[in-house]
Amino acid sequence: MTSSATPLRLSTADAGFEDEFARRLHWSAETDAQVEQAVGAILADVRRRGDAAVLEYTKRFDALEAATLAELELTPAELKHAFDGLPSPQRDALEAAAKRVRSYHEAQRRASGESWSYRDADGTLLGQKVTPLDRVGIYVPGGKAAYPSSVLMNALPAHVAGVPEIVMVVPTPRGEQNPLVLAAAHVAGVHRVFRIGGAQAVGALAYGTQTVPRVDKITGPGNAYVASAKRRVFGQVGIDMIAGPSEILVLADGSTPPDWVAMDLFSQAEHDELAQSILLCPDAGYIDQVQGAIDRLLPEMPRAAIIAASLNGRGALIQTRSMEEACAISNRIAPEHLEIASRDPHRWEPLLRHAGAIFLGAFTSESLGDYCAGPNHVLPTSGTARFSSPLGVYDFQKRSSLIEVSEAGAQALGAIASELAHGEGLQAHARAAEMRLKR
Amino acid sequence: MTSSATPLRLSTADAGFEDEFARRLHWSAETDAQVEQAVGAILADVRRRGDAAVLEYTKRFDALEAATLAELELTPAELKHAFDGLPSPQRDALEAAAKRVRSYHEAQRRASGESWSYRDADGTLLGQKVTPLDRVGIYVPGGKAAYPSSVLMNALPAHVAGVPEIVMVVPTPRGEQNPLVLAAAHVAGVHRVFRIGGAQAVGALAYGTQTVPRVDKITGPGNAYVASAKRRVFGQVGIDMIAGPSEILVLADGSTPPDWVAMDLFSQAEHDELAQSILLCPDAGYIDQVQGAIDRLLPEMPRAAIIAASLNGRGALIQTRSMEEACAISNRIAPEHLEIASRDPHRWEPLLRHAGAIFLGAFTSESLGDYCAGPNHVLPTSGTARFSSPLGVYDFQKRSSLIEVSEAGAQALGAIASELAHGEGLQAHARAAEMRLKR
Repeated sequence: MTSSATPLRLSTADAGFEDEFARRLHWSAETDAQVEQAVGAILADVRRRGDAAVLEYTKRFDALEAATLAELELTPAELKHAFDGLPSPQRDALEAAAKRVRSYHEAQRRASGESWSYRDADGTLLGQKVTPLDRVGIYVPGGKAAYPSSVLMNALPAHVAGVPEIVMVVPTPRGEQNPLVLAAAHVAGVHRVFRIGGAQAVGALAYGTQTVPRVDKITGPGNAYVASAKRRVFGQVGIDMIAGPSEILVLADGSTPPDWVAMDLFSQAEHDELAQSILLCPDAGYIDQVQGAIDRLLPEMPRAAIIAASLNGRGALIQTRSMEEACAISNRIAPEHLEIASRDPHRWEPLLRHAGAIFLGAFTSESLGDYCAGPNHVLPTSGTARFSSPLGVYDFQKRSSLIEVSEAGAQALGAIASELAHGEGLQAHARAAEMRLKR
Repeated sequence: MTSSATPLRLSTADAGFEDEFARRLHWSAETDAQVEQAVGAILADVRRRGDAAVLEYTKRFDALEAATLAELELTPAELKHAFDGLPSPQRDALEAAAKRVRSYHEAQRRASGESWSYRDADGTLLGQKVTPLDRVGIYVPGGKAAYPSSVLMNALPAHVAGVPEIVMVVPTPRGEQNPLVLAAAHVAGVHRVFRIGGAQAVGALAYGTQTVPRVDKITGPGNAYVASAKRRVFGQVGIDMIAGPSEILVLADGSTPPDWVAMDLFSQAEHDELAQSILLCPDAGYIDQVQGAIDRLLPEMPRAAIIAASLNGRGALIQTRSMEEACAISNRIAPEHLEIASRDPHRWEPLLRHAGAIFLGAFTSESLGDYCAGPNHVLPTSGTARFSSPLGVYDFQKRSSLIEVSEAGAQALGAIASELAHGEGLQAHARAAEMRLKR
């Protein structure tokens, strides 16, 4: 087990920079044909046989036996019991985090999630009605990646959106339950919880079974089987993004204590070996100090081996010609997490066009955002921040256009529609408009 | 060629209603293994060989030969020329429609697409920055489904969002260009147009070639090859929904002239044989009158054969026990287009939870919405209105969370984050928070 980490050191002034940088960034979601085939079969079976199939796969994959799927449902009382059983600092921390996350998402709903309409001069009404989804499913992984914070981050936006029924699935291999996860479900107002996982749980939520209700959308992280299942049921239900490895990019002007930056790079790297931590900084001396802090701090970290593997395999410390160049490179990467470790973060923020979340200033460690600042920690990875957004209230709402054309409006609009419909060869469209014209 | 159309007549009071209704609604997007394989090969080839591959497929599938891909780009002057060459009523109608669609989407941006932020009592800033995508691709089909209105409906929201580069692709089999489509591109402010189509055009936009720039998102309708290609490049770029057959559902209380309702059903049915038109009404006599109007009006329609095939194969006239029951059934269908043909549409609108667009009152024919009322005509089909929304400005924007924790904020948040991070076994997360605490 190694406890030394030397992220690749690059400089944008080097001749080979572009090639080396591209190689370091490269990551591709391999689809495994065997996984695909297994998932296809499981989904088809769950669709056909419902509960019986889910029970069978739960026995096979989770070593968990039950006579009925109802036995695998946890009651609200059981969730509350898990919460009550926690040490009080954990209870308080969960509730404080939930309160802040809820409050942020309420602001988000007010800012961008309310219905609106207006009337034209001729009395025609136009607008959009924004409504919550009827029922959503939240996938929560079991085992090593079982994070109570993920329960909050997935369930609370749904709750704030007004979703009347939030159904959580979480595998409990060999029956082992994670009390923090169940407590988080209690705090976040999850309505129903089933102890199932894998492709069979995704199938149960997408198609519905005798016991598990069919949902309208499924969100939440999972392994390759879960990701493949979500891709396959997309269209039947909505899904969130399929996440790649987590990433952090730190833009540093040299004003933040190097230890803080090193620890922020660690906090990304400790997730798993494929996580990516990158530092961009115009000051070579400061980069040396961060490397020094890495050397000094790494041995004391309990997850040193994972951190070292991640930093050695995918990390990079990059000297840029300027902060402006660092911002331009950041835009090419479109990172999931972007820290501006600068004494003047508002100078650089406007230059940063693509990122899941932007953390401004030395005091804003990514970890504060991960747990409790308020914004969501489910963020677009692998450059998808170019076109997608953090999980939010908007993911648990949908919009319906509203149109009420007045009689006067029908005269003006009818002439336009008729002309264009004839141009497209759609005569019934034209006639429907013309019938509303006064003779 | 038949010119008679008798949509299936049902009543919710019939014993067999549920089964017959389910059969009529059934539609599933079959994926054709041959299409999938061909598309996979084309995409891989375009990714590898770029321009050369696109030129080869364009020659093979569109019977259009060119020495370079640059030859297949249309200049802004050519688009303007197409516009100038239209009869003036068409020019005026295109411009009037564009003006209204633009104005609606500007209201949409103001209502839900602006950046926002707030500061906590301790000075911590939280918010979201909303930015346009850098570059988007719009797929416009050639041939029989080449609709200039689709150009407006895809390009204008991107334009209003502030996307600096809108790249349109449109196949021109055997070199045949559709002047209305090119004129619409001119009116909608499309920046670049390439005369390519099919999976090869989707690949060119997703990966970029020597000549076609790589985009961040691809929207717009297409055939099975285009739909399959869009599914496959999803993740690499964003995509809009994959559309199924178009649908209309009319809720009628008997107060709208039956001819108008019949023509609205036709205007959906004339799109193609798989389009679905459904009438829900508690008044059997009124349903008879609509059937009478269908019989009378159909023979005079130029697209009578398509309309008859659609209505006979997939249409339905359903007598309900009440308007309330009609609303409940509509919610189960979650139709793309929903007309409330009632003298009191605002009584029913609040009961309707799922629909792409809701058309209120007798004067609001779907065709007015399709062309020029203002709201987008790209709407969720096949029940996906349960969880998705009309194409809008928001599809051409993405959000980045903003977090700036003050020194005071770091004290309160640090304690919470540290507690939860230790609970998850992520010690570097905890340490990063703890380092920001004052000693």
